[in-house]
Amino acid sequence: MSLQQEVEFLRNIPLFSKVDPTKLKLLAFASERLAYNDDQILFHQGDNGDAAFIIMEGNAAVLIDTENGAIEVARLKKGDVVGEIAILCNVPRTATVQAKGQLTTLKVKEDTFFQLVTEFPQIAVEIMRELAARLERTNAQLRDALNKKAS
Amino acid sequence: MSLQQEVEFLRNIPLFSKVDPTKLKLLAFASERLAYNDDQILFHQGDNGDAAFIIMEGNAAVLIDTENGAIEVARLKKGDVVGEIAILCNVPRTATVQAKGQLTTLKVKEDTFFQLVTEFPQIAVEIMRELAARLERTNAQLRDALNKKAS
Repeated sequence: MSLQQEVEFLRNIPLFSKVDPTKLKLLAFASERLAYNDDQILFHQGDNGDAAFIIMEGNAAVLIDTENGAIEVARLKKGDVVGEIAILCNVPRTATVQAKGQLTTLKVKEDTFFQLVTEFPQIAVEIMRELAARLERTNAQLRDALNKKAS
Repeated sequence: MSLQQEVEFLRNIPLFSKVDPTKLKLLAFASERLAYNDDQILFHQGDNGDAAFIIMEGNAAVLIDTENGAIEVARLKKGDVVGEIAILCNVPRTATVQAKGQLTTLKVKEDTFFQLVTEFPQIAVEIMRELAARLERTNAQLRDALNKKAS
């Protein structure tokens, strides 16, 4: 994909739809494109993390390690952002992310990420919405797990 | 508390430390102060929500309903924000929040909330950090619940 194609691609992701193309060019330029094969790991739960990932193409599974092995708690698709918790909170990776089939991501480093969200409140709002939605799903899973444990 | 005292108070909350006092005056003016007694409910899980709450004084419990009754999943203190998930995601309240002892909150309506986060990226970043931290805690509780279920 050329830089121009990548900018076009980013513009079609809801997260970036309101961002000026010149800025998207800088984002694409400052970020690293990574390709993964089926089952390859983006990062492991417990790793240190200094970057977030935008799913450009393909799917990935979010896995939580338990004593009985990994449990898939979410499935990521094109346009989703993942890995921002570790950079927002300065904590190790809270889950493992694994490619499901061929996957391409844009790796956005910590400083680029903060530059983006402070310069574009709309991106900040979208990421807030995404975090809130994920929190809501996790709360539902927790309720479910607590109910099953009790019954 | 006078409006001026309230502005002073808001400035001492990390979330607002970088916001211009004039803007904090507008926030204080546009928002509603609410006082609760011990055990009073701010909102119930499942309610529709059109406002977030900033804890001004006192503590509150975040409760999740399960088949075996409510379980406390977090405790809120001065300066914490709660209730923003419902307005960010347009979903019903995902938990119940209950005063623990005397509690005072600032009720920030949906439009004021969005105005704040788009005008002050620093507030957006702080709220993102808070959501991410909460997501991390919830993931840990989920891991714990899944482990216990399995064992």
